[in-house]
Amino acid sequence: MAAVKQKAMKRKEFIQKGMITAAGATLLLSGCNTESQKQGQEAPAVITNKKYRWKMVTTWPPNFPVLGEGCNMFADWVNNMSGGQMEIKVYGSGELIPGLECFDAVSSGAAEIGNGASYYWTGKAPAAPFFTTVPFGMNAQQMNAWVYSGGGLQLWRELYANFGLIPFPGGNTGVQMAGWFNREINTIGDFKGLKMRIPGLGAKVLAKAGGTAILSSGNEIFTNLERGVIDATEWIGPYHDYIMGFHKIARYYYAPGWHETGSMLEFFFNMKAFNELPAHLQAILETAAARLNIWVLSEFEAKNNEYLVKMMKEDKVDVRIFDREILKALKKYTEEVLNELAASDPFSGKVYDSYLAFSENIHNWASFSEKLYYEMNL
Amino acid sequence: MAAVKQKAMKRKEFIQKGMITAAGATLLLSGCNTESQKQGQEAPAVITNKKYRWKMVTTWPPNFPVLGEGCNMFADWVNNMSGGQMEIKVYGSGELIPGLECFDAVSSGAAEIGNGASYYWTGKAPAAPFFTTVPFGMNAQQMNAWVYSGGGLQLWRELYANFGLIPFPGGNTGVQMAGWFNREINTIGDFKGLKMRIPGLGAKVLAKAGGTAILSSGNEIFTNLERGVIDATEWIGPYHDYIMGFHKIARYYYAPGWHETGSMLEFFFNMKAFNELPAHLQAILETAAARLNIWVLSEFEAKNNEYLVKMMKEDKVDVRIFDREILKALKKYTEEVLNELAASDPFSGKVYDSYLAFSENIHNWASFSEKLYYEMNL
Repeated sequence: MAAVKQKAMKRKEFIQKGMITAAGATLLLSGCNTESQKQGQEAPAVITNKKYRWKMVTTWPPNFPVLGEGCNMFADWVNNMSGGQMEIKVYGSGELIPGLECFDAVSSGAAEIGNGASYYWTGKAPAAPFFTTVPFGMNAQQMNAWVYSGGGLQLWRELYANFGLIPFPGGNTGVQMAGWFNREINTIGDFKGLKMRIPGLGAKVLAKAGGTAILSSGNEIFTNLERGVIDATEWIGPYHDYIMGFHKIARYYYAPGWHETGSMLEFFFNMKAFNELPAHLQAILETAAARLNIWVLSEFEAKNNEYLVKMMKEDKVDVRIFDREILKALKKYTEEVLNELAASDPFSGKVYDSYLAFSENIHNWASFSEKLYYEMNL
Repeated sequence: MAAVKQKAMKRKEFIQKGMITAAGATLLLSGCNTESQKQGQEAPAVITNKKYRWKMVTTWPPNFPVLGEGCNMFADWVNNMSGGQMEIKVYGSGELIPGLECFDAVSSGAAEIGNGASYYWTGKAPAAPFFTTVPFGMNAQQMNAWVYSGGGLQLWRELYANFGLIPFPGGNTGVQMAGWFNREINTIGDFKGLKMRIPGLGAKVLAKAGGTAILSSGNEIFTNLERGVIDATEWIGPYHDYIMGFHKIARYYYAPGWHETGSMLEFFFNMKAFNELPAHLQAILETAAARLNIWVLSEFEAKNNEYLVKMMKEDKVDVRIFDREILKALKKYTEEVLNELAASDPFSGKVYDSYLAFSENIHNWASFSEKLYYEMNL
């Protein structure tokens, strides 16, 4: 790429492209486009003196590294950008309500903002996991492309509108680790009888492989793994797994996180409260969410290696990579699980169609770009 | 990953982590941290009625797809978020000044904002390419991690402060294509005598391989390639290359873009003008830049495959992948070029040290995450 002069761009195709209105955003062309000018005049809102003091409930423990920390930063950014007009008080899980009640609380208007991950609400909205992650799904960069520029956000909004909510992307964990295991997994057969703490669609895939998903809340996992109530658990990645202390009690740390290949995190707003805001505060909230989206992933990516190396050196953690045949088998089971989901719920089917078409396209492009990047550099 | 209850997080390590102040951002802990509370009180700025009408000069042709288009969106977001207090007029290259004069124009205060790519300013600041891309360098996700969470932005600010400028990341092209060739490249020897339009550090690598970099401004490339003045040219990726029409006149389209593995785009602000802004407008500009950063990459990633497939189907473009041995040889030459740069300019040496240490770490983590992701899905 290099700087180009204006003249080079006078092709017909280019002019046509320049007129494209970006998905989900109003494009103000700097030329003399009538439609754009009209929108430009309508856009600025009058800033009133009305103060907003909003509550954000989250699924994370208070000040949880990266995720809760990011919510605090978000509140700070919104406060700063609005010149103090909007103050957001962030509540960790259990401070105002339990984390898993966030969705209902924001839906009812008890709080104006929620922060979590859409797949926690699968019981209410079966299509929800597609907006966080599905096993063998897209990674962070691809999820962003689908959500911002591939129609994903429109589908997500359609789903959440049923609950009086408006969602925005608000972070991503990147590719996770497959988890901590107290037995070796050398073939797909080794999942037979395995008792693993793994939630969501991953649990259904495990069941197809002959394992058993055991429910454990966050505070019980460590003890359950230590006492042999479970043989394995997934969590996030090296940074957060280190904090949980799993390296002290589990033998093997497996990669890659086939069940969570780039989990998108979310903000959701009470629709009525959001729609009643002046336009400048709506724009501030949406923009701050996008900033947090990129920061959260950057922070995970910057920190994970430090903790991975620390655990390998200090604690002699045995890091293993799943055999290709194991991953192939898990992928086959995943396709069954996703097809069953799509067949059982029409909206899930609609979302899956969009998701699948987009991921096939972006994977084709990745085979000439990102995939080759990793092959040439690592 | 799954929702956790507060109790689980009461480990000592966790509390320590929760106190970490994020790089480049003030973390407002929602608890009773004195330092944070103090900052919270100082943060909100008084919104005055003073209007700001700023000029943004860019290195892109007016309304250039994605890149110029993104600048227009940025201006729109800032206008909306500030309730009309800040209006930014975006100028394409040649509208107010030629694109390559942006840096000086913003440095002098003739315009308040610039948008381009740091490597255009290598003649003034030799370390500049590290903040866009260097051959065999980091990809988009890794660049963001380095810049936002790994100290990169601090170094970038240190460099630009010499010119009275403040930089912010503002986009990324993702992994580019290696370019269009009118001869096959089967061995590193095939670069001997090759006349290629390739700028920057890539040109120095080409020279080491026996090729000749030919300067061509954007509007001359097509004609030069058609008439055989050059044998090859790089540009960006399928979406923009299609607009340029190279598929009509070049035989081979090579991947991957070893010379631009994730080019970060930039905003730069006149330091005096930026520092004199009320705090809420500073926060609005920084946040809008981050939103554009994630949108630009998403847009490229969402569109590239469509145009790649279009060219392959409609125009029978012959897409090739460089042999591994070719890439190895180019990588060796790249190391020489970067070491020469680091030796010739102390600040480049300092930046290279940070860049290299960070990329070695994140590549190690990628070998358990992103690399395995592509291997298992493609």
